[in-house]
Amino acid sequence: MSAMGTLVLLRHGQSVWNAENLFTGWVDVPLSDTGEQEARRGGVLLRETGLLPDVVHTSLLRRAISTANIALDAADRHWIPVRRDWRLNERHYGALQGKDKKQTLQAYGEEQFMLWRRSYDVPPPPIELGTEFSQDGDPRYADLGDAIPRTECLADVVARFLPYWEEAVVPDLRAGKVVLLAAHGNSLRALVKHLDGVSDTDIAGLNIPTGIPLRYDLDADLRPTNPGGTYLDPDAAAEAITAVANQGR
Amino acid sequence: MSAMGTLVLLRHGQSVWNAENLFTGWVDVPLSDTGEQEARRGGVLLRETGLLPDVVHTSLLRRAISTANIALDAADRHWIPVRRDWRLNERHYGALQGKDKKQTLQAYGEEQFMLWRRSYDVPPPPIELGTEFSQDGDPRYADLGDAIPRTECLADVVARFLPYWEEAVVPDLRAGKVVLLAAHGNSLRALVKHLDGVSDTDIAGLNIPTGIPLRYDLDADLRPTNPGGTYLDPDAAAEAITAVANQGR
Repeated sequence: MSAMGTLVLLRHGQSVWNAENLFTGWVDVPLSDTGEQEARRGGVLLRETGLLPDVVHTSLLRRAISTANIALDAADRHWIPVRRDWRLNERHYGALQGKDKKQTLQAYGEEQFMLWRRSYDVPPPPIELGTEFSQDGDPRYADLGDAIPRTECLADVVARFLPYWEEAVVPDLRAGKVVLLAAHGNSLRALVKHLDGVSDTDIAGLNIPTGIPLRYDLDADLRPTNPGGTYLDPDAAAEAITAVANQGR
Repeated sequence: MSAMGTLVLLRHGQSVWNAENLFTGWVDVPLSDTGEQEARRGGVLLRETGLLPDVVHTSLLRRAISTANIALDAADRHWIPVRRDWRLNERHYGALQGKDKKQTLQAYGEEQFMLWRRSYDVPPPPIELGTEFSQDGDPRYADLGDAIPRTECLADVVARFLPYWEEAVVPDLRAGKVVLLAAHGNSLRALVKHLDGVSDTDIAGLNIPTGIPLRYDLDADLRPTNPGGTYLDPDAAAEAITAVANQGR
């Protein structure tokens, strides 16, 4: 184990909207039964490999919170300290939230669709406040006031995630702890971009599979001694990365 | 709502050992299906009465942690800050942990049995370290070192709970928050004794039913403006109190 502590990334498993192929973003949908099984398997992998978290950080969204609860229970680490923050949330998907991915692809075409999904700095159109899938008025974001996002590109996620990383996660790592981050495809991509120094272009091709813990050992400068990280189940990870790349087709 | 904040006590529902009539204490058994249903109902009561916690404190034991997770999810408050501490744990039941309640009653007689169960200051015999149901070596109590309890009477629970109350719960209340405590029969009795000024004798007859949120409104001196608290479902609470009193017979 690294002297600087160990980071474990866990992307939540299938949500009911993943299953229905809808853009989710900040809409707070629950895990599907499949997603709960993925979380449990993630926890079993932690337990079996002896990678036991000392502290967990989650987003404010149910699918990441449930994933952490289920995985930690399966790893017999349900009792560790918990921190939650909106800065770990999934990317806000703007006006696309609640929309069907396939229909969106058909309506806007491949180029625009891929720009919204994969470009580093092009956000979808902003969501209209007071509509079904906007989060204004949600008490969990009350402290944000007018700063609540109405849409985000990945660059926005990097910008809002890194202050939390520095202020809340790095101190745990410097204390030598095993830190579990239970979060989302894009908040975890934002972190991996930072850790591995992935370029704005190359990050487009990087997918993190769901439910498979990804371990990073960090040196004293918080650089990975295992660049790209180490999946606790590498074969399943390789298989899942292919499947995610075909999502929305 | 009181200017001083509002306290909500929630005793975990049935565990698999409650169902089997075994002394549990610090043994970390899960909720039964019935216990999970009780937790869900507790969360629905919170939601329906609009008593929405701003922060939750739990013990380090799975049955209280799961109760909080399930209830908060049902109340749509899964995202609130969480604190966990061993000082909210159930009373350590010493050498009785893992023993059948009925057999213990038969072996030791009614008087001794009731003394261990209900007296304020007579603990059961201490558990032997390194045995099946002792907690020495459990990483969650590593910080306690040799101070880890080997048995506790209710007076011991009061003594170890009150420092946490003062240091961790009272500041939340003074900040005007709605504070949920998801804990155990005896750690909640310890608190109620303190809040309501119940005598060492009278506390023996006080039972808190499982899964029914108990609300306390506190004044500026942290005294209840509703002594005894207010159950969110008073009829179910009255019924359950009778049932608990007959437990172990």
